[in-house]
Amino acid sequence: MKFLVQKFGGTSVANPDLRKTVACKIIGAREKGFTPVVVVSAMGRKGEPYATDSLLCLVRQVCDEVSGRDLDLLLSCGEVISGVIMSATLQSMGCPAVSLTGAQAGIITDSQFNEARILKVDVANILRHAREGKVVVVAGFQGVSEDGEITTLGRGGSDTTAAALGAALKAAYIDIYTDVEGIMTADPRIVTDAMMLKAITYDELCHLAHEGAKVIHPRAVEIAMQKGVPLRVRSTFTETEGTLVAGSGEVYKGAVDICRDRTITGITQIINLAQFKVQLDTNPAGLGEQRRMFRGLALAGISIDFVNILPGLVLFTVREDLADKAVQVLENTGFNPEVQTGCAKVSAVGAGMAGVPGVIADIVDALTRKQVNIMQCNDSHTTVWLLVKQDDMETAIRALHRQFLSGH
Amino acid sequence: MKFLVQKFGGTSVANPDLRKTVACKIIGAREKGFTPVVVVSAMGRKGEPYATDSLLCLVRQVCDEVSGRDLDLLLSCGEVISGVIMSATLQSMGCPAVSLTGAQAGIITDSQFNEARILKVDVANILRHAREGKVVVVAGFQGVSEDGEITTLGRGGSDTTAAALGAALKAAYIDIYTDVEGIMTADPRIVTDAMMLKAITYDELCHLAHEGAKVIHPRAVEIAMQKGVPLRVRSTFTETEGTLVAGSGEVYKGAVDICRDRTITGITQIINLAQFKVQLDTNPAGLGEQRRMFRGLALAGISIDFVNILPGLVLFTVREDLADKAVQVLENTGFNPEVQTGCAKVSAVGAGMAGVPGVIADIVDALTRKQVNIMQCNDSHTTVWLLVKQDDMETAIRALHRQFLSGH
Repeated sequence: MKFLVQKFGGTSVANPDLRKTVACKIIGAREKGFTPVVVVSAMGRKGEPYATDSLLCLVRQVCDEVSGRDLDLLLSCGEVISGVIMSATLQSMGCPAVSLTGAQAGIITDSQFNEARILKVDVANILRHAREGKVVVVAGFQGVSEDGEITTLGRGGSDTTAAALGAALKAAYIDIYTDVEGIMTADPRIVTDAMMLKAITYDELCHLAHEGAKVIHPRAVEIAMQKGVPLRVRSTFTETEGTLVAGSGEVYKGAVDICRDRTITGITQIINLAQFKVQLDTNPAGLGEQRRMFRGLALAGISIDFVNILPGLVLFTVREDLADKAVQVLENTGFNPEVQTGCAKVSAVGAGMAGVPGVIADIVDALTRKQVNIMQCNDSHTTVWLLVKQDDMETAIRALHRQFLSGH
Repeated sequence: MKFLVQKFGGTSVANPDLRKTVACKIIGAREKGFTPVVVVSAMGRKGEPYATDSLLCLVRQVCDEVSGRDLDLLLSCGEVISGVIMSATLQSMGCPAVSLTGAQAGIITDSQFNEARILKVDVANILRHAREGKVVVVAGFQGVSEDGEITTLGRGGSDTTAAALGAALKAAYIDIYTDVEGIMTADPRIVTDAMMLKAITYDELCHLAHEGAKVIHPRAVEIAMQKGVPLRVRSTFTETEGTLVAGSGEVYKGAVDICRDRTITGITQIINLAQFKVQLDTNPAGLGEQRRMFRGLALAGISIDFVNILPGLVLFTVREDLADKAVQVLENTGFNPEVQTGCAKVSAVGAGMAGVPGVIADIVDALTRKQVNIMQCNDSHTTVWLLVKQDDMETAIRALHRQFLSGH
């Protein structure tokens, strides 16, 4: 059987008309000779009774500190309900279908409630139903631990379900249906001439997803990459091809015009950051201080990013809403940080920049021409990260897009 | 551990205030030294988003012929959600609690979807949580088949869950909380001086439940009876003792005044019946005819009751809404039934009538005095069934109540 995993998010299955549109996509895939395995999220967003947020509200009104275990059990119902309704929709259109919980679909996870990781996938049950000619609809975002507890996979969990099933079934494609046409070179609300990418490497998309692109969860991309199953990010509401996500071989060697010669594939951003500068003693005792500082932040549960350690100076960022807490932690342990709120991180990602000289020079040129002050800059072989004032962010993104992408 | 199974129906857990009242009952039982194991139905009735009827509506709008399997998966979510919310309510009041699905509670059923029967109960998981000092809240009405499919137990399923858990845990009591005070000698809307029974035997309650009393499902009573676990039917909204349901030893030997000397314990009724009279040949060929008639009704899925087979005449009842269909089936197979719609079945149940002479005489006396025409009458050692015109039904019930019960 030639499996096709098709994942539909909450907004794609929010009402009967949309569910019929989704069913047409599934039936269409079947007519093309694929065996579709469908993954659905809970129906709709906040306000709809069976959406994840509504179930969360329901229990939060009762008790702030319900256990992660009970919470996962509750939330899992949202996707189960959605799966049954999707299966019923397919059946009403004459397409045989069956809905499975994550547990029934063989998604085995660890026991870390709310953020469980998939340990293995046992596809026996899916195969059995598929062999009977049924479209299998799997409740996304959930699994079962080895001791029989229902778990959920955290944010973007349905993407992860789809990727894990695609990998286990050696699917032809993992199609991630969403409300955008595909993956763009930049946020079209900022860059009016942002383009849709025909193709992107797993690695590039992973970096974009980690750095603020919300179209897919990076964990899903990693799983697909490990097994070499191509992903397609496409729209539920149009017939366009979407963006192919694959290894660099397929992406660069295929007849995919936009990919040729590109240094940078996409630009993304994360806003509401605060930059911390901490002066440290430069004598050997300073090393102990440094350790104490990082340990203190970790114990307070404050995640830090964009860390630069220089002689006598440490720079890093935290989420702006945690800045006050971080200041307190640092002051309590004897440090006196200099804090700059209202910062944004702009990331330029491109597998093509590896080993190409002059990329940083071009970036600095582009930003300087627009009077954008670079507060911090890191780079790897596929990404350049820039910290700028949030007020400069859109200018910076547009300048970079014009420099590297709009010309293509 | 001294287990107490406490079952709360949908109306008892329909809103936050009611759920707090329920939590107080549970915490109260805990303070008395019991280890409560709680069984809940889905929250509320039609109109509330997580009620069984609402989930049913949701899928029926999409597809009339959704499979029993998918339907059960959907409906099971109602009780799971209810269980988590009840567990959260307990936790918000400082009582440690955990919620389990039917499958997690070890309720193993056959694979007859929508009407599954419990095959066995594996209480290991409940015991583990109970030993940790937690109140275990179990989603009622559901189980899991041996091949991992979620099943539901049909009408009154949560009662059955409670009884099965009570039997498996050798509970001190199975408390069925409801919106009435206990089991009445007759429907108080018909008999104004109907009394609450302090005690009733399993067998009597089984008969009353089969014959129209809606307070508990007969299957639940049968399970409790098999293992000799006493049931109590009581109100969520008051502090009264309710009705004890036990073996005749406890019921008749205990200091339970109302039980002494009673011939009849309770009277119940089923309305909207049609009486069928079918004339048959009295020659030997008539026996083949008779078989053909019953087989024809069975194949058409028409359930019959109150069957009397006499030489040349067969009498039985069917639900009034199926009468036209039954007539058609009979006419198509060459019979010409005489049909009387607007009938009601009145059942007088009492373990005390066995071997007591004159019960039928007293019944006939009481009804004749009130000019009630007895259209059919059957009896067993614990029950007398009477078919009367529905217009005579209330008169008949009141006459019987006065004759056998009001004097006590």
